[in-house]
Amino acid sequence: MNKHALIVAGGSGIRMGQDIPKQFLHLAGKPILMHTIEKFYEYDNEINIVVVLPGSQIIYWENLVDEFSFTIPHKTAIGGTERFYSVKNGLSYISAPSVVAIHDGVRPLVSIETINRCFEAAMIYGNSVPVVTPSDSLRIVTNKGSKPVNRELIKLIQTPQVFDTNKIQTAYNQKFNPAFTDDATVLEKTGEKIVLVEGNVQNIKITTPLDLLMAEELMKRST
Amino acid sequence: MNKHALIVAGGSGIRMGQDIPKQFLHLAGKPILMHTIEKFYEYDNEINIVVVLPGSQIIYWENLVDEFSFTIPHKTAIGGTERFYSVKNGLSYISAPSVVAIHDGVRPLVSIETINRCFEAAMIYGNSVPVVTPSDSLRIVTNKGSKPVNRELIKLIQTPQVFDTNKIQTAYNQKFNPAFTDDATVLEKTGEKIVLVEGNVQNIKITTPLDLLMAEELMKRST
Repeated sequence: MNKHALIVAGGSGIRMGQDIPKQFLHLAGKPILMHTIEKFYEYDNEINIVVVLPGSQIIYWENLVDEFSFTIPHKTAIGGTERFYSVKNGLSYISAPSVVAIHDGVRPLVSIETINRCFEAAMIYGNSVPVVTPSDSLRIVTNKGSKPVNRELIKLIQTPQVFDTNKIQTAYNQKFNPAFTDDATVLEKTGEKIVLVEGNVQNIKITTPLDLLMAEELMKRST
Repeated sequence: MNKHALIVAGGSGIRMGQDIPKQFLHLAGKPILMHTIEKFYEYDNEINIVVVLPGSQIIYWENLVDEFSFTIPHKTAIGGTERFYSVKNGLSYISAPSVVAIHDGVRPLVSIETINRCFEAAMIYGNSVPVVTPSDSLRIVTNKGSKPVNRELIKLIQTPQVFDTNKIQTAYNQKFNPAFTDDATVLEKTGEKIVLVEGNVQNIKITTPLDLLMAEELMKRST
């Protein structure tokens, strides 16, 4: 089946406390976003890669591509004011029937195995979401106070979330709702049942300087 | 009110993949456990500190105390085969009426503010548990599959958990139950309502080499 990867890199850099948007910060010598793109290319070198960036960053990105002689084929699409609109616009670049992985640009440590598991499941069930189990003891807040909750029942959501393209495009025709915390919740609203698959704990979202340091260390250890 | 800190350091070092138990690994130049003890002493230099260690490590610890000229007053108690028995034994060294903080020896990054909030709440309500909210999107596994759960409702449990000494000693007279995931669940079984207070995100439990690296970095940033 025809495979696509929609890599969403909407960060403005403010949360990182830096001028450079986080997706362009260097990890092991090159922008984070390049590592992320490479992972999908490594998974399948015929995959169609679309990178969604804020309009103001497109030229900056093209300059980085030149500077780093980055040759992995990809298209760019312009993001919106909310992640919802960025994904919606990115999806308009993708033709069905196919499957599409929607991935955070700042998750360069996704494993090839995770990408593969997500695509395999989505090709069978129509969608898939990679998750990991938290390592801490947990409680859940209730009306009466709080109670312990078995951590095996709580799943931390990662990306890539992979979807039948027709289904996710239809889902993104809904009106934006702040309860949409990820792409799976957008699809779920249409009545689809979400399929969880195993992610990888190293697949962290880089949003703070400490995350970046951790990612550097994880990369060293994985090579 | 008379204050005690029971610092539980039962690690054998196996999970760290090292020969040295994790509580003795060096962080910023000295054993992790010394940093942890210092935090409670810094909070209140009249606090009564009891450190629970496996019997086989007591002499090793005493040698470290000499080697590092570690002068903070503390007693040592011998741990058991399960954390439950270690805490139970440690509690036998503590006299009521008083409040006791039970803390993981490998959480040296607890803040003074967290310790203070926990003691303050326990002196009013009889117990307190520091928690933080996860930063990831979450789902909860249900009979029918899974559903999103508001991450604000899920709390990651930390230590110190602080208790009215009489109440926690009584609770530890119960038979061991594998459902006891922390001290709060032991107390809760007696019918007490658990009180959640704000922890600090840096208060990580050091159980892997990567945690140790992260702790080094967090210490650098906090000074």
